[in-house]
Amino acid sequence: MSFNTFGHLFRVTTWGESHGPAIGCTVDGCPPGVPLSEADLQPWLDKRKPGQNKFTTQRKEPDQVRILSGVFDGVTTGTPIQLMIENTDQRSKDYGDIAQAFRPGHADITYHLKYGVRDYRGGGRSSARETASRVAAGGIARAALAKILPGMQITGYMVQMGPRGIDRSRFDGEEIERNPFWCPDPVAASEWAAYLDELRLAHNSVGAVVEIVAQGAPAGLGAPLYAKLDSDLAGAMMSINAVKAVEIGDGFAAATLTGVENADEIRMGPDGPEFMSNHAGGILGGISSGQPIVVRFAVKPTSSILTPRQTINQRGDELDLITKGRHDPCVGIRAVPVGEAMMACVLLDHLLLDRGQTGAARGAIG
Amino acid sequence: MSFNTFGHLFRVTTWGESHGPAIGCTVDGCPPGVPLSEADLQPWLDKRKPGQNKFTTQRKEPDQVRILSGVFDGVTTGTPIQLMIENTDQRSKDYGDIAQAFRPGHADITYHLKYGVRDYRGGGRSSARETASRVAAGGIARAALAKILPGMQITGYMVQMGPRGIDRSRFDGEEIERNPFWCPDPVAASEWAAYLDELRLAHNSVGAVVEIVAQGAPAGLGAPLYAKLDSDLAGAMMSINAVKAVEIGDGFAAATLTGVENADEIRMGPDGPEFMSNHAGGILGGISSGQPIVVRFAVKPTSSILTPRQTINQRGDELDLITKGRHDPCVGIRAVPVGEAMMACVLLDHLLLDRGQTGAARGAIG
Amino acid sequence: MSFNTFGHLFRVTTWGESHGPAIGCTVDGCPPGVPLSEADLQPWLDKRKPGQNKFTTQRKEPDQVRILSGVFDGVTTGTPIQLMIENTDQRSKDYGDIAQAFRPGHADITYHLKYGVRDYRGGGRSSARETASRVAAGGIARAALAKILPGMQITGYMVQMGPRGIDRSRFDGEEIERNPFWCPDPVAASEWAAYLDELRLAHNSVGAVVEIVAQGAPAGLGAPLYAKLDSDLAGAMMSINAVKAVEIGDGFAAATLTGVENADEIRMGPDGPEFMSNHAGGILGGISSGQPIVVRFAVKPTSSILTPRQTINQRGDELDLITKGRHDPCVGIRAVPVGEAMMACVLLDHLLLDRGQTGAARGAIG
Amino acid sequence: MSFNTFGHLFRVTTWGESHGPAIGCTVDGCPPGVPLSEADLQPWLDKRKPGQNKFTTQRKEPDQVRILSGVFDGVTTGTPIQLMIENTDQRSKDYGDIAQAFRPGHADITYHLKYGVRDYRGGGRSSARETASRVAAGGIARAALAKILPGMQITGYMVQMGPRGIDRSRFDGEEIERNPFWCPDPVAASEWAAYLDELRLAHNSVGAVVEIVAQGAPAGLGAPLYAKLDSDLAGAMMSINAVKAVEIGDGFAAATLTGVENADEIRMGPDGPEFMSNHAGGILGGISSGQPIVVRFAVKPTSSILTPRQTINQRGDELDLITKGRHDPCVGIRAVPVGEAMMACVLLDHLLLDRGQTGAARGAIG
Repeated sequence: MSFNTFGHLFRVTTWGESHGPAIGCTVDGCPPGVPLSEADLQPWLDKRKPGQNKFTTQRKEPDQVRILSGVFDGVTTGTPIQLMIENTDQRSKDYGDIAQAFRPGHADITYHLKYGVRDYRGGGRSSARETASRVAAGGIARAALAKILPGMQITGYMVQMGPRGIDRSRFDGEEIERNPFWCPDPVAASEWAAYLDELRLAHNSVGAVVEIVAQGAPAGLGAPLYAKLDSDLAGAMMSINAVKAVEIGDGFAAATLTGVENADEIRMGPDGPEFMSNHAGGILGGISSGQPIVVRFAVKPTSSILTPRQTINQRGDELDLITKGRHDPCVGIRAVPVGEAMMACVLLDHLLLDRGQTGAARGAIG
Repeated sequence: MSFNTFGHLFRVTTWGESHGPAIGCTVDGCPPGVPLSEADLQPWLDKRKPGQNKFTTQRKEPDQVRILSGVFDGVTTGTPIQLMIENTDQRSKDYGDIAQAFRPGHADITYHLKYGVRDYRGGGRSSARETASRVAAGGIARAALAKILPGMQITGYMVQMGPRGIDRSRFDGEEIERNPFWCPDPVAASEWAAYLDELRLAHNSVGAVVEIVAQGAPAGLGAPLYAKLDSDLAGAMMSINAVKAVEIGDGFAAATLTGVENADEIRMGPDGPEFMSNHAGGILGGISSGQPIVVRFAVKPTSSILTPRQTINQRGDELDLITKGRHDPCVGIRAVPVGEAMMACVLLDHLLLDRGQTGAARGAIG
Repeated sequence: MSFNTFGHLFRVTTWGESHGPAIGCTVDGCPPGVPLSEADLQPWLDKRKPGQNKFTTQRKEPDQVRILSGVFDGVTTGTPIQLMIENTDQRSKDYGDIAQAFRPGHADITYHLKYGVRDYRGGGRSSARETASRVAAGGIARAALAKILPGMQITGYMVQMGPRGIDRSRFDGEEIERNPFWCPDPVAASEWAAYLDELRLAHNSVGAVVEIVAQGAPAGLGAPLYAKLDSDLAGAMMSINAVKAVEIGDGFAAATLTGVENADEIRMGPDGPEFMSNHAGGILGGISSGQPIVVRFAVKPTSSILTPRQTINQRGDELDLITKGRHDPCVGIRAVPVGEAMMACVLLDHLLLDRGQTGAARGAIG
Repeated sequence: MSFNTFGHLFRVTTWGESHGPAIGCTVDGCPPGVPLSEADLQPWLDKRKPGQNKFTTQRKEPDQVRILSGVFDGVTTGTPIQLMIENTDQRSKDYGDIAQAFRPGHADITYHLKYGVRDYRGGGRSSARETASRVAAGGIARAALAKILPGMQITGYMVQMGPRGIDRSRFDGEEIERNPFWCPDPVAASEWAAYLDELRLAHNSVGAVVEIVAQGAPAGLGAPLYAKLDSDLAGAMMSINAVKAVEIGDGFAAATLTGVENADEIRMGPDGPEFMSNHAGGILGGISSGQPIVVRFAVKPTSSILTPRQTINQRGDELDLITKGRHDPCVGIRAVPVGEAMMACVLLDHLLLDRGQTGAARGAIG
């Protein structure tokens, strides 16, 4: 992973600012012969698209993706795939106030300190708008995975909003697409709706925890020691805007367990080894075990709020700043499709890495 | 980051197995002219060294590091520095039992599935013994940082053992070196001693949470978007054996906060901007802000325990396995110097990256 | 260097096919604060632009470059710069004949064998059209170099067309821009005109040798051992379409010299060391010496000719193929600005690498 | 390729100086299950070993390689393979004279300027002694290739010494191992012996041209556009000490050809496409065509000669320098096994890359 590129063999390079003419990415290293059109990518972008309900930013972006290269006669050619999404609804005037001032919690001050110059409109390069490119790239990864590993499935959902977690006994996968929070617990979803409304009207925002699960991934993915599958997933998720924490399997809860409790014991099943629990989240020693791969990440509350916060500007003046503009009261919601996309990209990348080194042969058991 | 190499400009490639003749690493990209000898590295290795008290593995390894290249007349030359640590106390016979069987919680089964072959002695390449190389490399990073950024300081300590956290009101930096747990809270330290003794005698083990803080790091380190400082730190920490979770600043707790609470407000101090809180852990938009950089990670309980656990062997037979050998009842303890080393490596790497791209110029405020 | 990206810190990722809607590149890692607009890039593209005279392809492409990101208020921001050039004059019907057939000397057959699918229109991704993106990226590198190293100058020219070399005693730098061949020898230029006309009318083509010289590059650029300045230059030049050979300084002629002849002896000049000759082409041990950096590369004759050549198609039928379309009778001509661009990119990249590792400090002499 | 590491998936990181305690390398990314022992590597090292006859340096190094990791029960495990070769015959006192002075043609001055410090003994890191590590790594690559592509064969030989080339009509592959020059032309070999003897006694040295051919490599290797097979080969060969030029197939001679002459026409043979010539050297568009891959490189004359040459020292004093020590009068000879090793490493690397991206499927013809 480096700079504006992520991935080893399946590599995504993103570009573009929140209020520039367009954003996009170059996807390099995709296997050839994968059926692909814009229609395969649009549904994932639509999932992330702003302005869909009152719980996300009211900026209206169609997020229409165009494929400019790398696809011919309906299939990928193995050469770089360029994706472009035009920015259409840029209300840059909202940002006149912050041209000189640093919004607390935002990257304004660190970009200024590092680069000496920044595109202040909507956060420029540090805007979450960039994640649309990740989602589009993730769509390509999914298309390639669908061809190579048809049984694999990646699902993301929110498991916590502010201090309010879901009740796992009410977990219902079908529920996820039915509410605006990608919440698998219908009771939590309706509580969150009321809670978030209240926060929004109070000119406030709140954080969230998102969980991404990959089912059907084969054993053997991961490139120890410094491109371990969990290490790459942690880096990938932590690179998403506003993410402050990542965990695999039991994560921080594993710290509270004893070795006797934490051992995922193994038995032989009809199709090979079976684990009797999944504290490890599907990864042992940086390599997938064949169990579901479970990643969770925490998203901090939106820093852009209408409540005044103390800050300074470039001249060093102290001031109180209200961040106008159109903002998500809980950015965790739209982080769900982004996390799914990162999972898809990392898994495809490791699938290619693995078949490069080992030819995808697997050690025999039994 | 890739495979057995980590870092972009300051790159560490580690090699070696737990029970091979030696382990070591190649450190490439170190600035020239840094005063360095084996005596500068040994203290860090001694901190991690096994067999120091009853709370760590009884394997006796002097962990004597040798510099085989890259240093001339007492200073680094800018060429690769090869470090080698001989393995002396390999009791491979302890591992006869597991030559065919897969220890639950270990990478035995995933290495077997991926590679079809594995060095089963002591976990081979997946052993935490590899982290000695990281600590040695971290010593080089610290030496280079000491020359470039003399005021910077990296400190690691344990903040939780099993479910028992420290009381932050008792935090005492001096205490860290006084107990075998690198624990800054003397009361917690003595409780942990009793608790761990009990677990050890019960043939059990337990997890831990480690915190690493870098003070005095300049603003401007970090290479958005996919080599963000937090993203690289997350990948680095997650690559340490047994780590299952990483967080920056408030981490998962940030998910429970509102935007009003989470904003690190800014005022002007005598030497420039000052933040009134540090929920962000010193990183905004992937770039350091000049505040202390705070990373925490969770270490799962040692999987090697003397309590029998259900598993299978290569032939597919089911069996109950006791993991003999000499193991740490809480690997979190020895993860402290490893986490410090990774922090040092990542910060030096980003310091070099930053001065490469920007010439280390900083945007002016005031 | 990897796949469709080149460079270590200054990284260029190109995308696009000859007959797709557009081509372009993402330039990542550019220093911030570099004055840049489309007007700075266009002159370099115009130099490479097709259709300027009868000696280059008659395809008419305005090659108008657009900057889509990474520049704000007239300067680079340090974030990725996206460049896009629309393809306007695609006569894809010219390529109906070769949809199934493999043009000898072209990459048609190898792309087909590797990927199982290819965009046959104009060579798709393997077309020299891709080099427009390199030239645009080179323009950015030049702008950054102009800021950091104002005295540096990069000049390319043709020194040989087919078997006809220039006479170095007639070398006149001013002449280069005066003839369509970037030829520094006016006599050779007029001979080449007649020679190439003849070949063109005979439905034939011819190869060339191009020389690129960088003057004013500082000593100390180069990252031994596997990113040596000469090694990176060789890889960069060899990656240009139709290039079959690269040499530094005396190159192949060095093989014929004795050690006594080849030694570039050193004396002290008023401003430091001075070399009494430059057999080495400005690079010793992979590091620049401060002398002019001299690279030469050979371009094979255009494979697209109107003379029928024997080949096969995908069905395995044998046939005789004439390559219609609009082609350069000597692609070496348009390779001149491309070679200059690669030199600019490699030098800037190494400048950033060097100041990353060493802080651009230099060892003292005298 | 980067710094002291080369390769994308099969990655070799070398370390060590001419007069340090040892040199070596870490080979990462090797496929698992490849039979390997020190006995497989030693023959290649013996080929390169100094002191074998009067035409190479009289330094006596057994060049005994040790495998320290990554091999278990006689096969590679897929984890990093550490190779170490101890330096035994270091006559560092030979170098007292040049501690302060810069030998013309050597990297002494550029290392000093870049790093401000250098290990002057025997050239330190810039010594050709480092190539022993490459040869050892190449031995691993050959072992892996032998398993995956049993029919492939890599052969290197000298085709020119100073101005004296071989006569290709006398080419005899069996001859290569019979003379100290790896010369396939017995007549040239005996002429070279006399010529080199004369030069050696005259305290002089001479350059050479080496050719490396890979036969039996499959079509489809190469990762366009910036890790083209020819681009990676050019970078790899140019990174060898004293190499100043690289060409593929006809190389510079291609510049003198017309398109009609240069076309490698294609016909159908019993097993698929057959080319009627090989001007391209087996690579089209950066991808192997299935023909023999042909690379040539020029080695400059040894810069270390007993004839005094003008130079300066660190204080800026001018002096005449004789380079004592034990040096090869024609380093091209020992570059032959090094070139072979680089070819093996690059081909294996691209084999892994290709099967990563495409699964090694090939497009059908006929």
